Amino acid sequence: MDIKQYVSDKAKKAKAASRALANISTEIKNNALFKMAAGLEKESSRLISENQKDLLEAGGKGLSRAMIDRLTLSADRVKAMADGLREVAALPDPVGEVLKMWRRPNGMEVGRMRVPIGLIGIIYESRPNVTADTAALCLKSGNGVILRGGSEAVHSNKAIVELLSKAGAEAGIPEGAVSFIENPDRACVMEMLKLNQFIDLIIPRGGEGLIRMVSENSTIPVIKHDKGICHVYVDGKADLAMAEEICFNAKVQRPGTCNAMETMLVNQEVAKTFLPAIVGRMKKAGVEIRGCSKTRAIVPDITAAADKDWDTEYNDLVLNVRTVASMEEAMEHIAAHGSQHSEAIVTNDYQNAHRFQREVDASAVFVNASTRLNDGFEFGLGAEIGISTTRIHARGPMGLEELTSTKFIVFGNGQIRK
Amino acid sequence: MDIKQYVSDKAKKAKAASRALANISTEIKNNALFKMAAGLEKESSRLISENQKDLLEAGGKGLSRAMIDRLTLSADRVKAMADGLREVAALPDPVGEVLKMWRRPNGMEVGRMRVPIGLIGIIYESRPNVTADTAALCLKSGNGVILRGGSEAVHSNKAIVELLSKAGAEAGIPEGAVSFIENPDRACVMEMLKLNQFIDLIIPRGGEGLIRMVSENSTIPVIKHDKGICHVYVDGKADLAMAEEICFNAKVQRPGTCNAMETMLVNQEVAKTFLPAIVGRMKKAGVEIRGCSKTRAIVPDITAAADKDWDTEYNDLVLNVRTVASMEEAMEHIAAHGSQHSEAIVTNDYQNAHRFQREVDASAVFVNASTRLNDGFEFGLGAEIGISTTRIHARGPMGLEELTSTKFIVFGNGQIRK
Repeated sequence: MDIKQYVSDKAKKAKAASRALANISTEIKNNALFKMAAGLEKESSRLISENQKDLLEAGGKGLSRAMIDRLTLSADRVKAMADGLREVAALPDPVGEVLKMWRRPNGMEVGRMRVPIGLIGIIYESRPNVTADTAALCLKSGNGVILRGGSEAVHSNKAIVELLSKAGAEAGIPEGAVSFIENPDRACVMEMLKLNQFIDLIIPRGGEGLIRMVSENSTIPVIKHDKGICHVYVDGKADLAMAEEICFNAKVQRPGTCNAMETMLVNQEVAKTFLPAIVGRMKKAGVEIRGCSKTRAIVPDITAAADKDWDTEYNDLVLNVRTVASMEEAMEHIAAHGSQHSEAIVTNDYQNAHRFQREVDASAVFVNASTRLNDGFEFGLGAEIGISTTRIHARGPMGLEELTSTKFIVFGNGQIRK
Repeated sequence: MDIKQYVSDKAKKAKAASRALANISTEIKNNALFKMAAGLEKESSRLISENQKDLLEAGGKGLSRAMIDRLTLSADRVKAMADGLREVAALPDPVGEVLKMWRRPNGMEVGRMRVPIGLIGIIYESRPNVTADTAALCLKSGNGVILRGGSEAVHSNKAIVELLSKAGAEAGIPEGAVSFIENPDRACVMEMLKLNQFIDLIIPRGGEGLIRMVSENSTIPVIKHDKGICHVYVDGKADLAMAEEICFNAKVQRPGTCNAMETMLVNQEVAKTFLPAIVGRMKKAGVEIRGCSKTRAIVPDITAAADKDWDTEYNDLVLNVRTVASMEEAMEHIAAHGSQHSEAIVTNDYQNAHRFQREVDASAVFVNASTRLNDGFEFGLGAEIGISTTRIHARGPMGLEELTSTKFIVFGNGQIRK
């Protein structure tokens, strides 16, 4: 098979479909999403049997238990996928929204209208539900999508895309608008990343290696969903009961996520009172604590943090703790070691809350709330395609609006350039 | 000189400065812009004598007359640069604007605040005024900037940046916030394009070759300012007097710009009346006309358009003319040959105006106005760093707001993830 031709043909077709899709009514798009949901539910057992093939092959590949769990489809999970499609159908269509319109001195009216980005390439790993989720979000926002899932989920993904395409076609969605690169050859990804003439945006979702590979090789704009080294700073003026709940939640509620806390910064004014309680509770929950020398002077029964620990995303039940002399020291630590993802302060001091919120550089900055809330659903965006760590276009959770661009619309009555 | 080290040191310093700059008050930034403007005017004669060195060397390089004109600094041009800085000072500061804020069911408030992008790399050619303009726009929007001008303007650019930096330092702008790569080695550009850890966005301004080189080699997000193949469609229901003014303006007022018309599409209903008048007027203004066979049947005394002409950006007094049977045919032509830059319809028909505006894909779509109006000043953005042809982040004219990103700001009272 000629990989170059194969990928290019898929992308060309998807681009043509995306052009037609840009002007399709919300009614048709929603109808397609409902048909897709019904199709997934109806063919649930077939999806599960295709998924079994992936699981069988995964056994031989030595995937971790966590990866196998993420790969597995059950009747409940298929149902959840279908429900996800219906939820996207229920969200407002961002396309066509005029954000603002104003009149110029020469009488012409200028506005900005939300339009689809075009054709979006999604490169992702493992979880087959990502296939349905991202296809739905792209469809609703009027974008064509070309999906490239991990080779370990190829049977599941292929079956899902076939169902979505069939249901979409019945509803009047142009053929190829949801496209899938099933050839497992890695060269396909490299080809995708160079197809500027067809693909308008690449969104990689997955581990650090995947993100780096895509960023380094793509000639197409990339919006990364990269790692999170997130901090909670417990201020000298914090409500310590609140601080304990927030820190515990930020670390323990789901430690494998990018918005979980990796390092807790505690002001020395409250360290003696606060540390024994929170460290005890964390340890009871199975968290390994690594502390600075000041912290270990207060809670001795923990590991000493090594220099590299402050720059590590554990994605696990491990927590760094540093006792700081001031909020300035905490902010300097965050600037030096954070990944500009999710940062929080717990304080009742107005000035500190205001300054931290203003000066800390991250996709989301929290006052008195858990970093775990940096999420499209929690923020009310309705759904999310991921959390962007790219500094342009969209930072933080990306919902439907973030999958659109704008065009200037101008209404004149004969205006010319003077 | 170790190029890698040289560029990386510059960028590292500029990045550190950009972090400090992000939180500097509008007052300090405006004060710096005024001091910079005064500095340019005071040192006008020194700038002109540095510029003479560039012009002298340009003589030996065989630059075109147009390029030499663009390169030349005069007292008037230095004054215009200084005025430009004062105009940027007068614009509202976009940093800190909260675009929207809403309350979630759990009581936490979520908002989006405009923040600087970070460090912006500008790679450009020829005109020394771009140095002052872009530095001012980046400074006002709180971004550090690392400038890489063309080697033909290196003496002028270096002198301008030195003046700006000196005036900036006096006003309290962090050192390195306006940085300049003066080493003419092209390897410097290649190094810049790989410095993801320091540079957040690359904006190339220049010819097709430069834009392509940057897009293909940058691992940093790029916002392109690419070519424009723009159309005016004269509908069967157009006011023909208005159509003539708009088409003439779109072609002749400044043919070298990206928003000038390259192809005029005329509905056959009005072609017999409209074409002789407009073609006569264009020819009188020195425009060479290349037409399709239908057009040549009406105005025989023109060249036959070749296939490649429809895909050519002339940037000159040359115009393609095609007579079409319907608006659909015009829109298909635009989709096939346009560069999604600036597209216009002239019509008095409500449905055609509405449909063209909605369905045509371009950074700006005009009803009854000239494509030449696709411009930051004309749209009321106050100033522009260029016209983006990238589909994400900012499409069309980019002003100060488009040089910012957003962060989510969250105010809670103990919210955690359930």
